[in-house]
Amino acid sequence: MVKIGLLGCGTIGSGVVELLERDSCRKNDLSIEKILVRNKDKHYNKPYGCKLTDSFNDIISSDVDIVVEVMGGIDPAYFYVKQSLLKGRHVVTANKDLIAKFGSELQNIARQNGVRLLFEASVGGGIPIIKPLKECLAANNITEIRGIVNGTTNYILSRMDSSGLDFETALKEAQQCGYAEANPEADILGLDAARKLAILSSIAFRISVNYEDIPVQGINNISADDISLARYLGCSVKLLALSRKTDHGIMARVAPVLLKNTDSLARVSDVYNAIVVKGDAVGDVLFFGRGAGKLPTASAVVGDIFDIVRHNMSSQGVEDCKLEDPAPVKLDTAGCKSDFLIRVKVNDRIEAMNIIAGLFSRFELIFPERAKLGRLIDQDQVIFVAHDIYETDIDKRIDLLGTADCIDNVLSILRVEGEA
Amino acid sequence: MVKIGLLGCGTIGSGVVELLERDSCRKNDLSIEKILVRNKDKHYNKPYGCKLTDSFNDIISSDVDIVVEVMGGIDPAYFYVKQSLLKGRHVVTANKDLIAKFGSELQNIARQNGVRLLFEASVGGGIPIIKPLKECLAANNITEIRGIVNGTTNYILSRMDSSGLDFETALKEAQQCGYAEANPEADILGLDAARKLAILSSIAFRISVNYEDIPVQGINNISADDISLARYLGCSVKLLALSRKTDHGIMARVAPVLLKNTDSLARVSDVYNAIVVKGDAVGDVLFFGRGAGKLPTASAVVGDIFDIVRHNMSSQGVEDCKLEDPAPVKLDTAGCKSDFLIRVKVNDRIEAMNIIAGLFSRFELIFPERAKLGRLIDQDQVIFVAHDIYETDIDKRIDLLGTADCIDNVLSILRVEGEA
Repeated sequence: MVKIGLLGCGTIGSGVVELLERDSCRKNDLSIEKILVRNKDKHYNKPYGCKLTDSFNDIISSDVDIVVEVMGGIDPAYFYVKQSLLKGRHVVTANKDLIAKFGSELQNIARQNGVRLLFEASVGGGIPIIKPLKECLAANNITEIRGIVNGTTNYILSRMDSSGLDFETALKEAQQCGYAEANPEADILGLDAARKLAILSSIAFRISVNYEDIPVQGINNISADDISLARYLGCSVKLLALSRKTDHGIMARVAPVLLKNTDSLARVSDVYNAIVVKGDAVGDVLFFGRGAGKLPTASAVVGDIFDIVRHNMSSQGVEDCKLEDPAPVKLDTAGCKSDFLIRVKVNDRIEAMNIIAGLFSRFELIFPERAKLGRLIDQDQVIFVAHDIYETDIDKRIDLLGTADCIDNVLSILRVEGEA
Repeated sequence: MVKIGLLGCGTIGSGVVELLERDSCRKNDLSIEKILVRNKDKHYNKPYGCKLTDSFNDIISSDVDIVVEVMGGIDPAYFYVKQSLLKGRHVVTANKDLIAKFGSELQNIARQNGVRLLFEASVGGGIPIIKPLKECLAANNITEIRGIVNGTTNYILSRMDSSGLDFETALKEAQQCGYAEANPEADILGLDAARKLAILSSIAFRISVNYEDIPVQGINNISADDISLARYLGCSVKLLALSRKTDHGIMARVAPVLLKNTDSLARVSDVYNAIVVKGDAVGDVLFFGRGAGKLPTASAVVGDIFDIVRHNMSSQGVEDCKLEDPAPVKLDTAGCKSDFLIRVKVNDRIEAMNIIAGLFSRFELIFPERAKLGRLIDQDQVIFVAHDIYETDIDKRIDLLGTADCIDNVLSILRVEGEA
């Protein structure tokens, strides 16, 4: 009999309970012993009511073998997980905040205490990505990770595209559908995506990528104009998480981009997630599925529980991926070039085009026809795609653009990306 | 030091040698001890020349820990793999013929001898699919597998679509590019896909699916007309491998189908492979990548070698997937309905339409405009889509259609499938 202590019984937690109640789990002799919740009264009429506790002490002083953490957040999850590992309990977690911030420390503690720390559900919900990356693709030198790893923002951008909604309306709709939280900041500002990218990059590149070092741009400034223009240019706007090995280290960023519709990630819509891993032997491999939700996430959590059981509850001979390296790398964007779609509000078109021509040696003016665009873009805008701009240079040029008298302000700057 | 004996050094074998020569493998203390080839003279000037042997006895009597079989085919691979397992050597193989036919027997032998038999490379080349299916998705009740699992046929169909080639020309081109073998039968008749489908289904449904029981239809009768019509109907022709749990057992088949372009598999082109796994908890998960080729396949083989090393060369506590069940199921298509695109050559259009109306209660006549079709279809054809036909009924109706005087012959029958 393998005894499980569950920390948290919200959406994901109740999914874990549901899957563990199945015959296939009973056959594996898995049993939930205790469930930690903040407020026992909220769960009193549930079938698992007799297992509830509001004290972590009840869990850690019991004889549970595996602690499953599905509370989310850092505090008190960090303390609970650390205590569990120190007391020789295996831990399975779905908590990307925790793993992105304390993953390497916790993994060291697990190793020292002869137990395992697994976190497949922390990235991509139910999509198998962490295990395939660290095990199946281990023969590869992984050179790039590209992904749509945040379902909330992808839903909002999909709705803006499919129904012409503006950002605020699409966000409200996402909140009503339960796809966005009441406080949606971590999602829409790209922080959630950066945490997941840091976890994936650390595994793929076998070095410690600190999520706080990753430059992040959210989708909160994306307008209906941007979405229409993207479509006009044969692209979709996506919040892309990207990391890449360069000659000097690692480059990584999270930002909304115009993704060419020929790119395999451009058609990933709604709350779906997809991740493309580039390996020098295997080429591009894409993993696609539901990146969030009760049962998809629980599927990954219970998959990890099975993994621990399959290995006879032992950490012997199971080298789980290391999340760290002695010296964290400096994220590097030197030498990287991108194309940018730039919109500026002008008071003098001719003079503005002169300024643009002076700042960007290769650029392409866009004059969208109203009929094809499906909406009217203000006449006082100049829209252009600047080609082959060094990432390290773009901010300076945009600053110069903004200070020109003929330009009132810079409305938007979006990278154009994607494989043809 | 982990010692490897390699059986075969053709395309995949030389890829395995290349990957194992890398620093990351040397760090893992992996070393190729012996390489079995049929003709040593062909390899005499290679850097690994000193390791060559043309006698399996040299391999099995040496102290290799892992035997890697990349020869392909049943004979002598079956004998070599069996001997290796019996002598207590772990085996990694890329051989789908072998696993589809003898997988469960060989896995039993492996278990009895305390060693492991891994075969990630046997399906989907470099795409991680077997391990994710058996481990990451273990909490799911898998209800369906749909895939494009044969790169050769997908290349041929893609070329017919993109360049209007006929089947013979596209096949010749595929042979020139090295994507099709001199004897392409196993690929174009769908046998290779059926073997891979049997392996995936056995793992997913945890029952023994015999590949010889799977109804198979190849792409050899697909004409340029079929491809044009598919495009006209918003579909692509794909060789689809499909298996599904039904109320009565398992249904499985390999056949060319018209896949709606909205389906996630419709855009998988050239030699790429993709597999969609449907789990009751996770929903649809898609895996995409290079389904064949030297380094992609070698990536999966070496991933399996790493797996054995990671588990300390032990089979203890590693429950590899079982490929068998005491009672093999009868494949079941009862109750399954499909839509079919049917083309018949007629000598009396009106009378033919009468016959069709009598045989198919719900059908839709197709009169493609030449301009939209991009080619001329013979005027003596009647083309229609028959809806909701029981799979168990279609053959009988087609027979009746063929015997009608007004119908010269049935030109093609293709299922219409795909998710909108």
